[in-house]
Amino acid sequence: MLVNYPNGTKTKQTYILHGNRGMSLENDINETNEYYLVHNMAVIYKKPTPITVVKVDFKSRIDAVIKEAYYKTPSTTDYNGVYQGKYIDFEAKETRNKSFFPLANIHKHQIEHIKKIIEHGGIGFLIVRFTHYNLTYFLDGSKLISFIENNDRKSIPISYFQEYGKLLETKYAPRLDYLKILDKIIKEGDDF
Amino acid sequence: MLVNYPNGTKTKQTYILHGNRGMSLENDINETNEYYLVHNMAVIYKKPTPITVVKVDFKSRIDAVIKEAYYKTPSTTDYNGVYQGKYIDFEAKETRNKSFFPLANIHKHQIEHIKKIIEHGGIGFLIVRFTHYNLTYFLDGSKLISFIENNDRKSIPISYFQEYGKLLETKYAPRLDYLKILDKIIKEGDDF
Repeated sequence: MLVNYPNGTKTKQTYILHGNRGMSLENDINETNEYYLVHNMAVIYKKPTPITVVKVDFKSRIDAVIKEAYYKTPSTTDYNGVYQGKYIDFEAKETRNKSFFPLANIHKHQIEHIKKIIEHGGIGFLIVRFTHYNLTYFLDGSKLISFIENNDRKSIPISYFQEYGKLLETKYAPRLDYLKILDKIIKEGDDF
Repeated sequence: MLVNYPNGTKTKQTYILHGNRGMSLENDINETNEYYLVHNMAVIYKKPTPITVVKVDFKSRIDAVIKEAYYKTPSTTDYNGVYQGKYIDFEAKETRNKSFFPLANIHKHQIEHIKKIIEHGGIGFLIVRFTHYNLTYFLDGSKLISFIENNDRKSIPISYFQEYGKLLETKYAPRLDYLKILDKIIKEGDDF
């Protein structure tokens, strides 16, 4: 998550965080999930960001103010839920890079997690947006794992997404209709 | 979540939070989930507590300190994951009450969430511990919903858990083997 926050400087500064500034892929996915929920198509949520709370002021029992806390490295992915009884789990990332998706954008724990999800019969995948072209790809977890296990490189070339991923159109509503791709995976397996 | 924090007083006080003090059901479930993960039986995690971050000090990019944040009301349950390809979703609560489980312990959103999970083919349930007797019950989501839809009362009597729930033994490892109950539900439906 930290990669999305403003760049820090050596001098101590305080930032006020504004809702979703610059998090457009996240916004698109949240709106899509909201659409799915409202239309009773699927129940998929973004997990809260993991935070370690150290100090809390309790003015009253329902009025607690957290005064010191830290971001934790996530051990799972950001999104999960249920679609047609199946367990759905994915991570979404943007990159400004024009040719590659740097694997440093995903934690090792998260890749291990996607691998386990697949082993247990869930559907795990990645959504990656190349912001320079505004192109958003769905990459099945099995394709992600097979790239990592067969390559030493620290980034996935955009050509891999073109060949093995599915392009996700951005529409008005739902913004990024990834259930359409899940339908095909559920029906035909991930090699459709 | 707030019900588990120290009682607030009118005067402002600062508490240092100690890990899991007094959260023994949560500990038991976390250890159980860890056991399932290590033994490659299921992938089930506790979701992070939802927090709204307002102010962050960035000493450096990887050294952000949250200086002001607030607890949010959760819209989903605390635990979810995958078991045998199926979507698993539950909430866990302790009560010191000897005769009833007060429904004020679960948010309306969470009950709606469990209902939706069941509609979409997932397995949703409740784990409730009556701490006075140290008795822990598994209550299928359908039984929870049917109680709420057929009663005006604001609490579920312990007799309802005895009749419609399943007693979960506390063991050394896994602490609370709720997958055993899921096995029966998957095989025989929730009326076994």
